[in-house]
Amino acid sequence: MDTTQDVAAQLRDRLAASPFHASLGLRVEEAVPGVVRLGFDATSEHRNLQGLVHGGVLATLADIAMGLAVRTAIPPGRRHVTIEMTLHFLRPVAPGAIVATGTAVRVGTRIAFAEAGLTDADERLLARASGTYSIVGEGD
Amino acid sequence: MDTTQDVAAQLRDRLAASPFHASLGLRVEEAVPGVVRLGFDATSEHRNLQGLVHGGVLATLADIAMGLAVRTAIPPGRRHVTIEMTLHFLRPVAPGAIVATGTAVRVGTRIAFAEAGLTDADERLLARASGTYSIVGEGD
Amino acid sequence: MDTTQDVAAQLRDRLAASPFHASLGLRVEEAVPGVVRLGFDATSEHRNLQGLVHGGVLATLADIAMGLAVRTAIPPGRRHVTIEMTLHFLRPVAPGAIVATGTAVRVGTRIAFAEAGLTDADERLLARASGTYSIVGEGD
Amino acid sequence: MDTTQDVAAQLRDRLAASPFHASLGLRVEEAVPGVVRLGFDATSEHRNLQGLVHGGVLATLADIAMGLAVRTAIPPGRRHVTIEMTLHFLRPVAPGAIVATGTAVRVGTRIAFAEAGLTDADERLLARASGTYSIVGEGD
Repeated sequence: MDTTQDVAAQLRDRLAASPFHASLGLRVEEAVPGVVRLGFDATSEHRNLQGLVHGGVLATLADIAMGLAVRTAIPPGRRHVTIEMTLHFLRPVAPGAIVATGTAVRVGTRIAFAEAGLTDADERLLARASGTYSIVGEGD
Repeated sequence: MDTTQDVAAQLRDRLAASPFHASLGLRVEEAVPGVVRLGFDATSEHRNLQGLVHGGVLATLADIAMGLAVRTAIPPGRRHVTIEMTLHFLRPVAPGAIVATGTAVRVGTRIAFAEAGLTDADERLLARASGTYSIVGEGD
Repeated sequence: MDTTQDVAAQLRDRLAASPFHASLGLRVEEAVPGVVRLGFDATSEHRNLQGLVHGGVLATLADIAMGLAVRTAIPPGRRHVTIEMTLHFLRPVAPGAIVATGTAVRVGTRIAFAEAGLTDADERLLARASGTYSIVGEGD
Repeated sequence: MDTTQDVAAQLRDRLAASPFHASLGLRVEEAVPGVVRLGFDATSEHRNLQGLVHGGVLATLADIAMGLAVRTAIPPGRRHVTIEMTLHFLRPVAPGAIVATGTAVRVGTRIAFAEAGLTDADERLLARASGTYSIVGEGD
């Protein structure tokens, strides 16, 4: 049994169960413990007034990629809560395919740190993000 | 002629012209140069898997409130581009009414700084944000 | 007995006991639970190559002001650990008197949030900061 | 003539000319355009009250490593000004050798982005940082 496929399959189930995530049309392209790569197609409906993809959409992608990367690196029965997130917007982003790769940089018993990079179809870096997560019990 | 009403009316026109902003259902509740207050109703479609409003939605609100606050404080013919944004999530956010207040903290000729606070109907602080903006010519 | 004077006196004792803090020459100008105001004299030795006060010095001031503000707002027997800090540098800072005011924005049982503002002798805002703190037992 | 040695030599000259930098005892261990690695020995004088290296010291190291990385990647006659910096403190840091590696992630004509990682003698990651820099003329 392939553990990597398990991790990706579990994430796909999670995303499908969430109306917010499902409406974004996110694809889990790869997932191993601590690293998750998501695919997303930015369309005209995600544009700001300048015709570029809105920063809030990029923030959403980065938060999901980082959160899922943390989720795949913590024990069963624990969950993550976003405490803080920072985003740097490196380039203007036109509608099109975006890949968001989240990486768990350090996972402690109470606090986890993650980073994310967003790239376009030409693998140009569009944005970088970092985030802090509180690790709590499912019932907390 | 009331300048404050003018500022708010201009922002309403801008938001109405943007499919992304219009689809969010944002209301410009108040706008004076350097301060913009937006109303938003978080619904079940904005929930994450834990039933709380997704952090990406809050990031989007904060970015728009800060960006419009900067926009109202720069000269005509100039526009703002988000360089960087940091968000602190202070409380779990249930669906319901959210007010996002953006404030331009400092506006230079090239760089502007803004902050935002998000509150619920009981005026409890839900999130705080800060952001950096590049000020460029319309044609840049 | 004046509680506010007690809080300030306790902070002064703490700072005096720390070689790092004592060497900075910080003054506790005011302290109430959740808000701490520190005075600092930036001298020529704190300058970068452009003759301005180094950003690392401002970061140090902001971190101390925020951390002490959190410290005054948590129960005895608990301590704070900095998880994350963001700084926005609003103006170039010449050597001279700087006041750093830290405010605890929200203090939970596990996580606290604080903000700080640095001003010069003319009360111009020089920098703004925000930070996240983990609240742990003294023995943790 | 070795360009890489030139870059490192120029940075060493810059650091030696700054009282603030010289007093820190920083060593330029490696420098190529866009990447700078600094060595630093944290001693007992850099400790906070818990006996750990103060976050402000780590912030200073990260800011210098990122700023120099940007400096090595911009044209002669241009200089960098720190706009914003975010730090994540991943582990408690005991006094000892610290290496700070700054990397210019993207350098535009007006704005540059950099990141830094701080590691100890065992190459454990102690802190991560990201920063935004304004690129201006020497006379600006």
